[in-house]
Amino acid sequence: MSLLIQNVLVNGEIADIRVKNTRIETVAPALIPETGEERLDGTDKAAVPGFVNGHTHAAMTLLRGFADDMELLPWLEKKIWPAEAKLTEEDVYVGTRLACLEMIRSGTTTFNDMYWHLPGAVRAVESMGLRGILSAVFIDLFDAEKRREQIDQNRAFFEAFGNPNPLIQIALGPHAIYTVSREALEWIRDFSGENDLFVHIHLSETQQEVDDCIKAHGLRPVEYLNDIGLLSDRLFAAHCNHLNETEMDLLTSAGAHLVHNPVSNLKLTVGDIFPYKALSSRGVSILLGTDGCSSNNTLDMLETAKFAALFQKWQSNDPTLLPAADAFRLMTEEGARAFRVGNGKIAPGEPADMVLIDLNHPRNVPLYSLDSNLIYAGGGGAVSDTICNGKVLMRDGVVPGAAEIIAAARRTVQKFRGI
Amino acid sequence: MSLLIQNVLVNGEIADIRVKNTRIETVAPALIPETGEERLDGTDKAAVPGFVNGHTHAAMTLLRGFADDMELLPWLEKKIWPAEAKLTEEDVYVGTRLACLEMIRSGTTTFNDMYWHLPGAVRAVESMGLRGILSAVFIDLFDAEKRREQIDQNRAFFEAFGNPNPLIQIALGPHAIYTVSREALEWIRDFSGENDLFVHIHLSETQQEVDDCIKAHGLRPVEYLNDIGLLSDRLFAAHCNHLNETEMDLLTSAGAHLVHNPVSNLKLTVGDIFPYKALSSRGVSILLGTDGCSSNNTLDMLETAKFAALFQKWQSNDPTLLPAADAFRLMTEEGARAFRVGNGKIAPGEPADMVLIDLNHPRNVPLYSLDSNLIYAGGGGAVSDTICNGKVLMRDGVVPGAAEIIAAARRTVQKFRGI
Repeated sequence: MSLLIQNVLVNGEIADIRVKNTRIETVAPALIPETGEERLDGTDKAAVPGFVNGHTHAAMTLLRGFADDMELLPWLEKKIWPAEAKLTEEDVYVGTRLACLEMIRSGTTTFNDMYWHLPGAVRAVESMGLRGILSAVFIDLFDAEKRREQIDQNRAFFEAFGNPNPLIQIALGPHAIYTVSREALEWIRDFSGENDLFVHIHLSETQQEVDDCIKAHGLRPVEYLNDIGLLSDRLFAAHCNHLNETEMDLLTSAGAHLVHNPVSNLKLTVGDIFPYKALSSRGVSILLGTDGCSSNNTLDMLETAKFAALFQKWQSNDPTLLPAADAFRLMTEEGARAFRVGNGKIAPGEPADMVLIDLNHPRNVPLYSLDSNLIYAGGGGAVSDTICNGKVLMRDGVVPGAAEIIAAARRTVQKFRGI
Repeated sequence: MSLLIQNVLVNGEIADIRVKNTRIETVAPALIPETGEERLDGTDKAAVPGFVNGHTHAAMTLLRGFADDMELLPWLEKKIWPAEAKLTEEDVYVGTRLACLEMIRSGTTTFNDMYWHLPGAVRAVESMGLRGILSAVFIDLFDAEKRREQIDQNRAFFEAFGNPNPLIQIALGPHAIYTVSREALEWIRDFSGENDLFVHIHLSETQQEVDDCIKAHGLRPVEYLNDIGLLSDRLFAAHCNHLNETEMDLLTSAGAHLVHNPVSNLKLTVGDIFPYKALSSRGVSILLGTDGCSSNNTLDMLETAKFAALFQKWQSNDPTLLPAADAFRLMTEEGARAFRVGNGKIAPGEPADMVLIDLNHPRNVPLYSLDSNLIYAGGGGAVSDTICNGKVLMRDGVVPGAAEIIAAARRTVQKFRGI
């Protein structure tokens, strides 16, 4: 299988890109087309690496706009939890496909997911063709019976879906330290180590979480995970808003990956937000994430990067912090390396995960700096074509099957009316 | 001239909208098409009022991405001012047309502008068909000679372009209290009163401005303007980040209009940002603005509204503050009333300034709340059609002449290379 992208702006020059099967083979001007080769016209477009969403709950697209502008507890208790209680595996399939459609439209090719009814997410990702790091929500509420159930379920998911698969990596998804017992976290530590599985957790999202942890364990959240032995380069910790210096050092030396979700943090009013300046100076791995559609309400990584870049400048009172090129690096190179899907670059040998950007979109005019236009002026709306694992998922704005995905989502959400 | 929008979601129901000349005549289901009437198919679309951008410098689209992630002074002195020194009236025409193209694409039908070479902006707005409140930048730097020049120029502009015009309202644009003398502000007060002209000023953007004003005049900035007599319902004050209670009361009782520019404020790290909670509880007129493309770098009002809604929730630690419906009201009803172009509603007798939203865009699926999808999930990318003053400026994403506007902008910015 061969794909030729012609006459595209890539790495600062106009060139062609040849993909063989799932990888980039050549980047050079004026390649000679091969017989039977699929072609994409890159004229007035730029090719950039596919975007990596470090933290989301994909099927929550079904709850986009279902409940906003509410206090946290009534929001969860009266709206989100009653709706989630009605979800079936088929619903998660439908909702994850809607999420994949939105991600393909806005340039995301890899996403890190944690949600219910994991088999539905697996089917959805396979049908849509992008890459998912998929974990079931693991919550035992400190109950031994529930813990056994959750462990059995996670073992079963790993056996069913853990075989090498170019698109799907099964991971473990302990929800948070306040919903998962120490015993369960220890099992997750061991099972992750034995099978080389990523671990995806919410960590230090609010000051409340920190205060409760100190009260319960005499340790701050990161110290508690360190005590359990969960800190490693397989750990993806979402939020990390409330960290002290010791915790930052622990996460850095363990090689853990931190996922900053600025839109969600602002919407849910979590207090201090992700200490980027102190963390980036340590060289720890930092990714960007959208969080789920209940707290965002989109999966647009370029929008998230704009929020991150601007909010971090403002929070640190330093307009030079997190410049556009760095923000773009977090959502491409950092994400790709962390999830072991190459280096997030367009170069021979790299996985063929690429996005074409429409340079005739008024927001990309003029073009002094592609990074600057992407992060500050772009938004996902300027993405015209998306390629993942060598396959064209969107061509000139068109994703095959989009109408059917949207119709299915509309049918599915009827069940939430009245909540 | 008659336009019929058929089968569109409007005010919560599916109906048709008939426009006669420049105003909405009827909103009702199943209107009978008239002979020769222009038609727009509104199926799977929603009609909402056109967006109002309360503060921008339109032609700065030419400097989009020209200089980002810099400290304020080197940014101004080494990049922005040298570039602006090269601008001609023709350049401002070209840049304002690019801005109008972007605004039409993202649903803005009215904008409040302050920039150099005003005749270029006038020509651009007339050629593009949206509404501009246009002011020349008035700066005298406390120099009597410059003041006379500026006053003469503003008189001349008013004579040339101040005649009743459905699309253009000439306004006065004193840049700020730290660049304009008291004598000039007094002339502006008088000329604005005599001719019923709006006044557009940057106000209390930074703490530095407040401190300097107290030092120079023994008064805070709003008190200083009050002392001069500039506070009125013709005043549009951009930023207003640093206000005390007295100043908020003064602005409120004068009926002044405050324009909140959250994206610019974060990017330029201005410290505390627009005290929305305290201001909205007073009932003062509040609009949203994008600011210019050097400090944003787009003119997308829906994106600006998302930044405003989320940042204000976070700043006040109140997730219920500035809900989606309120944010949408600021960018439609509040803006329209403030600039006296109707009430920002789709109803008989209102100006025909309308935007159609593509409900098949994945970000608008599902549709529990149109307001919520627009503000939190939308972005300008879901705008499909834009109508201003009864004329269709964009149909199904296509703005006639877009390619020529983009080509002209690309040619023009060559002169900035090397700065």
